[in-house]
Amino acid sequence: MLTLASDFGTPYPAAMRGVITRRTDATVTDVAHDLPRQAPRTAAFWLRFVLPEFPPAVHCVVVDPGVGTDRAALVVRAGDHALVGPDNGVLLPPARALATASDASLELFTVTVDDPASATFHGRDVFAPTAAAVHETGVDRLETRDDLTPTDDYEELTLPEPSVDRADGAVAAATGEVLAVDDFGNAITNLPGDLADGRVGEPLRVETPEETTAAPLTRTFASVAPGDPLVTVGSHGYLECDVNQGRGDERFGLGVGDEVTVRWSEG
Amino acid sequence: MLTLASDFGTPYPAAMRGVITRRTDATVTDVAHDLPRQAPRTAAFWLRFVLPEFPPAVHCVVVDPGVGTDRAALVVRAGDHALVGPDNGVLLPPARALATASDASLELFTVTVDDPASATFHGRDVFAPTAAAVHETGVDRLETRDDLTPTDDYEELTLPEPSVDRADGAVAAATGEVLAVDDFGNAITNLPGDLADGRVGEPLRVETPEETTAAPLTRTFASVAPGDPLVTVGSHGYLECDVNQGRGDERFGLGVGDEVTVRWSEG
Amino acid sequence: MLTLASDFGTPYPAAMRGVITRRTDATVTDVAHDLPRQAPRTAAFWLRFVLPEFPPAVHCVVVDPGVGTDRAALVVRAGDHALVGPDNGVLLPPARALATASDASLELFTVTVDDPASATFHGRDVFAPTAAAVHETGVDRLETRDDLTPTDDYEELTLPEPSVDRADGAVAAATGEVLAVDDFGNAITNLPGDLADGRVGEPLRVETPEETTAAPLTRTFASVAPGDPLVTVGSHGYLECDVNQGRGDERFGLGVGDEVTVRWSEG
Repeated sequence: MLTLASDFGTPYPAAMRGVITRRTDATVTDVAHDLPRQAPRTAAFWLRFVLPEFPPAVHCVVVDPGVGTDRAALVVRAGDHALVGPDNGVLLPPARALATASDASLELFTVTVDDPASATFHGRDVFAPTAAAVHETGVDRLETRDDLTPTDDYEELTLPEPSVDRADGAVAAATGEVLAVDDFGNAITNLPGDLADGRVGEPLRVETPEETTAAPLTRTFASVAPGDPLVTVGSHGYLECDVNQGRGDERFGLGVGDEVTVRWSEG
Repeated sequence: MLTLASDFGTPYPAAMRGVITRRTDATVTDVAHDLPRQAPRTAAFWLRFVLPEFPPAVHCVVVDPGVGTDRAALVVRAGDHALVGPDNGVLLPPARALATASDASLELFTVTVDDPASATFHGRDVFAPTAAAVHETGVDRLETRDDLTPTDDYEELTLPEPSVDRADGAVAAATGEVLAVDDFGNAITNLPGDLADGRVGEPLRVETPEETTAAPLTRTFASVAPGDPLVTVGSHGYLECDVNQGRGDERFGLGVGDEVTVRWSEG
Repeated sequence: MLTLASDFGTPYPAAMRGVITRRTDATVTDVAHDLPRQAPRTAAFWLRFVLPEFPPAVHCVVVDPGVGTDRAALVVRAGDHALVGPDNGVLLPPARALATASDASLELFTVTVDDPASATFHGRDVFAPTAAAVHETGVDRLETRDDLTPTDDYEELTLPEPSVDRADGAVAAATGEVLAVDDFGNAITNLPGDLADGRVGEPLRVETPEETTAAPLTRTFASVAPGDPLVTVGSHGYLECDVNQGRGDERFGLGVGDEVTVRWSEG
């Protein structure tokens, strides 16, 4: 199985799919082609969330603001999975999640690329053919490919860590940032969901540089009336700032990268 | 074959697809993931329109404003098809259409769900695994599954019925509502297409609470000049208020749920 | 393999996919369903770009402002590929590209269509079933189908040609038009990429009826600072007016169909 993910919108991904289906009979699945534009960190968040759900596959990932520069093309092996994409860090958070899931360590390879047909669409000219070739070779036989060279020189990308303020053991406040806003408008933070353990139902204050919003910590959207704000643990395991049947990003005044503090209210 | 439909946008559906492809080799097809947000009735309209085109399949449908509450998870058998989704009515109109097409009656089952990993993404944690399991078991063997219990206790959802004013046999006016607005801006009503039988070319008045628009009853979009309004019978068999190469919803002032009266003009 | 392309948005294409999967086990791949609305010429540009990447396939293309009128339905054979769609020219530019790639000539057939179920959704009622039937028959055996009649009477569609002003051999200016704007906002012209041969790095003036923008001719987006304009050779082989990590259409004031002149600056 091959998966495709990009920020290309439409119809560029179809060209990648054509290139791949010319080279392999493997099933090709789109993960998403409307990942946030040219934002490797947000894309990495989403791919870390989604790719571990898949069976062993070759994942072709193209979020590549540096296309056409001398940034390298990478293949990353993570257990039974391989990821193919640009060397800008976007592959690493999902690759680490895949490796952890299969108790493997990461192995990285740079791709020797013949002069590509274009300087602006390496999805078609570099990454898709490489992904197809890696699939045909087999993820466990990457060493047999002449165009792949093991490397430990690559762009790192890690998602930010939050700071947690514990007073007498109980968490009083935690400060982090918004990793992503989903299509529902849920503002997903990097604050770990276990902050909510045993505290569902408590009132919170959510502070941004611009405003402060009172919202309860709930288990579900429907725990508050439609249109009301809430904080809950999202399916990715992080706290998210939401509105039941509305947009949390607008209500809380939050966008990707914004700092956010969740404070347990005094009452 | 498995189909997926939701209001999730992107990239959540890819997680569902991963979960399913981990469990079955079946072909997985996306129906749509941008069904109107948290609007089971509009989603039901679209699915009733689309799903009967498919060969026998398991259809996983997630439009679920009550996710995480105690609403049940359902499997509905409709002849050779099965539908899997939340117990909020969204499954019933398409299930009835599928059952009618194969001269079958509906059979409903509640799903016994182990504590799901999240309270906000049952598409991944409940419905996708259930759909994969149902597919592997076979639609004709649902009774063999311990996690499925026959039920006749479920949320009903029916699409609204119009009222038709017949004067001396001929229809003088009909009042209904807008079931959906498609991406072209066509405002699709619940007024049955047979109201147009033998009357193509006649002038109509379309009345909404806000405004009245004159438009002919036509067989095609191209029967009027680009930019002009028309009423025609859509491919779902209902009257729709359209503009040739433009947006009918804007021209007629219509949105989902709006009341609309179509009146045969005196001349 | 069957591919689907349309301007239908969602969820209409799923009905086409259902119709096809009821009739054939072939792999069905979406090319794009958000091609520019009812714009056969822009759609033809994109399909000419994308379809040649695919292995031999039947391509079902529905961009059809004249649906329901007496415009014919066509099947076009281009070597090992076939295209199925309305007779409005949209099939011809991609068909010619496919034919050229396999050194074949075009063969056109009109489709005898039984009275379709709807006058507004021939994607479902005419083109999808025809595409499935053509696939099952085989692209090399179209002559055996009673519903296909060879024809040389069809709507032509050609993409516009630019004019190039050569002073003493070197190109001083070239005037063309915008064929398409992609999701990144790149304004893709019909000015051939070989105008850039040997001249990367030179300053240009891009003139539209409304404004003039200075921008360098570069090989990559990242050759200029984020937010700065550039002209480069896109992956389709044409000059495009872009902004690094921004929207070229807004910066240069360009939309589909706009005239654009690229002028080599005196310095």
